[in-house]
Amino acid sequence: MRLSVVLFLIAISAVLAGSVTIKSLVFPTETSTSYVGMTPKKPMTLNAFTLCMRVATELPGERETILFAYRTSYYDELNVWRELDGSLSFALAGGTVKFQVPPFSALQSHMCITWDSSSGASTVFMDGRKSLTKTYKQGHTIQPNGKVIIGQDPDNYLGEFDGKQSFVGEMCDINMWDSVLSDSTINDLFTGKRVPRGNVLDWETAEFEVQGQAQVVDRELYL
Amino acid sequence: MRLSVVLFLIAISAVLAGSVTIKSLVFPTETSTSYVGMTPKKPMTLNAFTLCMRVATELPGERETILFAYRTSYYDELNVWRELDGSLSFALAGGTVKFQVPPFSALQSHMCITWDSSSGASTVFMDGRKSLTKTYKQGHTIQPNGKVIIGQDPDNYLGEFDGKQSFVGEMCDINMWDSVLSDSTINDLFTGKRVPRGNVLDWETAEFEVQGQAQVVDRELYL
Amino acid sequence: MRLSVVLFLIAISAVLAGSVTIKSLVFPTETSTSYVGMTPKKPMTLNAFTLCMRVATELPGERETILFAYRTSYYDELNVWRELDGSLSFALAGGTVKFQVPPFSALQSHMCITWDSSSGASTVFMDGRKSLTKTYKQGHTIQPNGKVIIGQDPDNYLGEFDGKQSFVGEMCDINMWDSVLSDSTINDLFTGKRVPRGNVLDWETAEFEVQGQAQVVDRELYL
Repeated sequence: MRLSVVLFLIAISAVLAGSVTIKSLVFPTETSTSYVGMTPKKPMTLNAFTLCMRVATELPGERETILFAYRTSYYDELNVWRELDGSLSFALAGGTVKFQVPPFSALQSHMCITWDSSSGASTVFMDGRKSLTKTYKQGHTIQPNGKVIIGQDPDNYLGEFDGKQSFVGEMCDINMWDSVLSDSTINDLFTGKRVPRGNVLDWETAEFEVQGQAQVVDRELYL
Repeated sequence: MRLSVVLFLIAISAVLAGSVTIKSLVFPTETSTSYVGMTPKKPMTLNAFTLCMRVATELPGERETILFAYRTSYYDELNVWRELDGSLSFALAGGTVKFQVPPFSALQSHMCITWDSSSGASTVFMDGRKSLTKTYKQGHTIQPNGKVIIGQDPDNYLGEFDGKQSFVGEMCDINMWDSVLSDSTINDLFTGKRVPRGNVLDWETAEFEVQGQAQVVDRELYL
Repeated sequence: MRLSVVLFLIAISAVLAGSVTIKSLVFPTETSTSYVGMTPKKPMTLNAFTLCMRVATELPGERETILFAYRTSYYDELNVWRELDGSLSFALAGGTVKFQVPPFSALQSHMCITWDSSSGASTVFMDGRKSLTKTYKQGHTIQPNGKVIIGQDPDNYLGEFDGKQSFVGEMCDINMWDSVLSDSTINDLFTGKRVPRGNVLDWETAEFEVQGQAQVVDRELYL
């Protein structure tokens, strides 16, 4: 019986070494109409967050490309950009903080951003590797009751999209938490662990509002 | 005795955490004469394949470089290129499909290509990371009775090599299967697992026809 | 009791899957005055070495940047550079050996250099990936009684720093051995294993001489 406990534990490990299938969003071409809306699980009044996603795009570095947009009636509350100079940036209702990171490519990258209002500490992670820490928007609070848009940058609450800034490629596993996850937890997520689930956005239970040419396909993640 | 079973399992894990030594091909300089021929284990009549290799090269991106060539008397049946624009491409008897990937460097990259005739689905993997899926040559069959050449692009069955397209650097662990391996299997191969062995080309049992300045050296792979 | 042994082993694994906090050096801006001195544990009479560190910098590729300097009264005995062309190089009392590697970025890279006098074999590792092997300074011996400087390139024993070559960014986990570590050991160090400790420089017990604007902060490493 003691051995059976051990074998049970080993069996769990075997399962953990397998793979899971998740939904993935494909944006085949540049448009000003294709996007996917996501509904947060709770009001996005945020004094801290971790936002993660997996991204593959062959768009050249010399193009401003939107990776994530959360907008209320009044403001772009949280936009994530790949900038003209190839850097990764995010903006909280004005201003921006930039990180020089390796370029995105046809290969899928796991990317996370963390921000904490109390210190302003901001970092990005790509494929488990953590960036330098920068200070940005200390004391700020992200406002609730907006809309999360993937694939386009809304210039007002209802739309007005600019195709030149649209996302082209594949994006999945978009999860968001209302706290800063530890480095080791983010590394675990990169390597395929499925917990903790996002308490603001949870990819496994999220419902998508799919518009234009955006498609939802299946993708294997290995653990 | 129950404990001994457990300790046995732990001992296996310890061995798996070790390293193996494999053969590696070094091409020291640009030539039109150095190459290594490999003999497939079965006729290369292929409706699907996975081709993997480990590559290190300091050649600049702005140079067309051959990474793998399989040619019959009539056609370049399967060529893998690093293109002028730094992208990775492969060509099946005419046409080409390109993937924007991170550049090769002095550091060894593990690279795989998968293709399936029934859907035309084509992907590349670098260091375990999977690319976007592209559609290419649906319904095509690769023809048998050709020659596998590493280091040069044969412009006919017997040779006619162009030094400007030759490979310079180190290449090893070239394996090929007549099916599309799963993402998790390819990730396992990247991390050093030695199974499944290639059923078309198997690096561990392959015999090499070494020509010109090409050298065969030993290289440690960690598991 | 047998089970308790097993559970003990599992508990060890859990600890190994955790994280540790280590010291990290931050150089906030370009200066000719900020640096950190480190004292070796033994005289640096070296016929072989492995030198590892974790580096994050947003300095552009087109800038000569010092990563490590060991200088006696007479010579730059060991300098590690990121070169103008973005390559990584090291120099032993004259001459230099260069490796084309992926650029450093805001994301932390684990980097190691190995050199062995008997063969001259020189390699670099980034994030566990090994480079091509080059031959450099066969038969040479690094001389003792110098000074290890992080952040600046001393043009004589007492200083004379050039701000244009200074390091800006974050650096930590600088360890040095008087032998060439195996590929698998270097991969273990990359993934966070804390042994073997450096017998020439050991980050965990090192004392720092902190000058100028250089700061010592804490950083989480996950195992």
